[in-house]
Amino acid sequence: MTGPRIDPARLWTRLFSLGEIGARVPGDPSQGVNRQALSAEEIAAWHRVIGWGRDAGVVPATDDAGNLFLTLEGTEPDLPPVLAGSHLDSQPTGGLFDGAYGVLAALEAATALAEAGLRPRRSLYVVAWMNEEGSRFAPGMMGSAVFAGARALDEVRRVADADGITVADALSDLHTAFPDLPRLPLGFPVHAAIEPHIEQAPFLHRNGIPIGVVTGIQGKFTWEVDIRGREAHAGTEAMATRRDALQAFVRIAAALQSDIAGTDDAVRFTIGRVEVAPNAPSVIPAKVIFRIDLRHPEGDTLADLATRLERIVARESAPCRATATRLVEAMPNTFDPALRHRLTQSAKALGHAATDILSTAGHDARYLAPHAPTAMLFLPCRDGISHHPDEWLDRADAVAGAEVLLDTLTHLLE
Amino acid sequence: MTGPRIDPARLWTRLFSLGEIGARVPGDPSQGVNRQALSAEEIAAWHRVIGWGRDAGVVPATDDAGNLFLTLEGTEPDLPPVLAGSHLDSQPTGGLFDGAYGVLAALEAATALAEAGLRPRRSLYVVAWMNEEGSRFAPGMMGSAVFAGARALDEVRRVADADGITVADALSDLHTAFPDLPRLPLGFPVHAAIEPHIEQAPFLHRNGIPIGVVTGIQGKFTWEVDIRGREAHAGTEAMATRRDALQAFVRIAAALQSDIAGTDDAVRFTIGRVEVAPNAPSVIPAKVIFRIDLRHPEGDTLADLATRLERIVARESAPCRATATRLVEAMPNTFDPALRHRLTQSAKALGHAATDILSTAGHDARYLAPHAPTAMLFLPCRDGISHHPDEWLDRADAVAGAEVLLDTLTHLLE
Repeated sequence: MTGPRIDPARLWTRLFSLGEIGARVPGDPSQGVNRQALSAEEIAAWHRVIGWGRDAGVVPATDDAGNLFLTLEGTEPDLPPVLAGSHLDSQPTGGLFDGAYGVLAALEAATALAEAGLRPRRSLYVVAWMNEEGSRFAPGMMGSAVFAGARALDEVRRVADADGITVADALSDLHTAFPDLPRLPLGFPVHAAIEPHIEQAPFLHRNGIPIGVVTGIQGKFTWEVDIRGREAHAGTEAMATRRDALQAFVRIAAALQSDIAGTDDAVRFTIGRVEVAPNAPSVIPAKVIFRIDLRHPEGDTLADLATRLERIVARESAPCRATATRLVEAMPNTFDPALRHRLTQSAKALGHAATDILSTAGHDARYLAPHAPTAMLFLPCRDGISHHPDEWLDRADAVAGAEVLLDTLTHLLE
Repeated sequence: MTGPRIDPARLWTRLFSLGEIGARVPGDPSQGVNRQALSAEEIAAWHRVIGWGRDAGVVPATDDAGNLFLTLEGTEPDLPPVLAGSHLDSQPTGGLFDGAYGVLAALEAATALAEAGLRPRRSLYVVAWMNEEGSRFAPGMMGSAVFAGARALDEVRRVADADGITVADALSDLHTAFPDLPRLPLGFPVHAAIEPHIEQAPFLHRNGIPIGVVTGIQGKFTWEVDIRGREAHAGTEAMATRRDALQAFVRIAAALQSDIAGTDDAVRFTIGRVEVAPNAPSVIPAKVIFRIDLRHPEGDTLADLATRLERIVARESAPCRATATRLVEAMPNTFDPALRHRLTQSAKALGHAATDILSTAGHDARYLAPHAPTAMLFLPCRDGISHHPDEWLDRADAVAGAEVLLDTLTHLLE
């Protein structure tokens, strides 16, 4: 009997096979994938992944939040299991690897263990979290947040998509499609959790490093700012008496750009969405509503920037009125040092170059981290492109990631 | 037989009756009017106004530019007619009086002449110019500009609204709705043109003066500025490498606000319309398209500001690319001194206080002025508010304006 081995062809083929489900051009996954959370496409993806798992003796289960668990049972199944995986849903213009890679790399590791006839002490659960992307039901990372107790299931169930279909309705469809799956309890104890994922930024790819050991996820705050001025005629109202909501927006945005965005190299400050009313060329705007997205890897700095930002909004708004409402307040997190060390050791043992790296995007692992020792493994994606049909992970890197994951899992499962 | 007399109740009632067409709250014109150029609502307004004209023996006609003419025929119909009127379209959040008052005051004057059994020597044409506001099809004052030869009909016909409907399509709908209307030639000779209009600024109202005799219209330049950046992920792309089109917009707008808007008290500088793409909260904007509206009563200053403005757009756009396209280049104009004197004399004869006044808003009369002796009559609007449901003209002032118009017309028509 040899040790467990990743099958590169199987892993690679399955990535494309899964990409056929929800392919934007039927039969051509290279044109991008649209596999929305809890959709018919995601149900089809569950069927395919569950089928692959059954072939290897890996047993499916779900929970009330619509997460999928495929269990390779250990010799001591009452011990808290090790979780590995990511998500199966995609953005509307998604690629083949975001989410799917993490699930299939973990399934490949479980399959390799099973094929090698190894029964580790702890159980390994391959996991696919419900609605990571948040594009159908906002915001995302619902399944992991509910599992880990960061959000209430009842609150999440009330969220509706653009067609008025609630998460509760969609969960019911999902569970109806899999009537035989046992339901695991939410928030069961977890020994360790690992999420493999493409980087979604260009660092690893540009530097030719196949393995990123993620130190943590930067914090993210978002606001909706609502500025109210007074509508008037662009040709007649004197500048001195105007209450121009757009000019207030410009003052606020310019001050934020100079005082917040330039604080240090780690700040990410974006105004991505702006709505002006009445938005007519010759009418002084009465209302501007805009969104701010602010991220930073250090909690203290982020909290300080948030306070300063809100002060700037208030200070620059006169003679209009502006209110800034916090929509997201996610502080940065740091992943488990021992797990990170273990991943680095596995990479070293396998001869794959590895580096510590910060995640600038959010992931399900953010919610797992307070619940159990958690870490993430990043793989290079070409030019940092993701959420786009051009998203690409080289086959060699996909295999390297699965090998590192497998090696680390073999240690964690004993 | 008595002399012609304005019927105050009829004039006032018709303003509200017309306001029902396009009322933002059906049946309640006091909540504002949305009567877009060449829309179903404007067609309905034509039907109502034409009906009122027919009751008085005033005969409708149109032209290829979608202007409406209601003719009270003179005894010498081959003489160039006198034109009086304004427009029937409104801003999306318009009031009852902007445009509509000018058309209905002129119709009231024609009706009074007809009812008095007077047939003047020259014909009187009550006119409603096509698309003064420019909110559906930009820029505005299309009908008067095409009539007077300042813009080419073919060019105007290609302009499309937000739904992709062109002026050509919409003109076809209009003309189909009125198959029996004769078509007058564009640019026929005009003896004199008078446009009554609310002031849209607070001077007359604050000083309790019912009649403003407009000396001229301040100049107006408008631009569409197109900024192109690069779309990227709000969480990952470093600030230093971004090409954020919205931040370029903010820099440009802030520089214009400080360097252009504050030049002197007579400047009017407005950014009324802004479109951001893709306009998603976590995506760095790739494109911002916005409109600038700049006005000044002095031609030299306006030309100088325009040059400086374009330099600022170019200077502040990096690392994005920005192009500023001039849409309107209307230099200030002065109305006909003899006509202005005539209006002042009529006000004096009727015992209505009158003052000379500059128009800070653009009007169709701007385009008529190079074509024929032209003047404007301003009426006070409460607090200067217009383009807003609160727009208000006191009944007594509405009547005074129609009386002055009628008196001046009786002189001009002989």
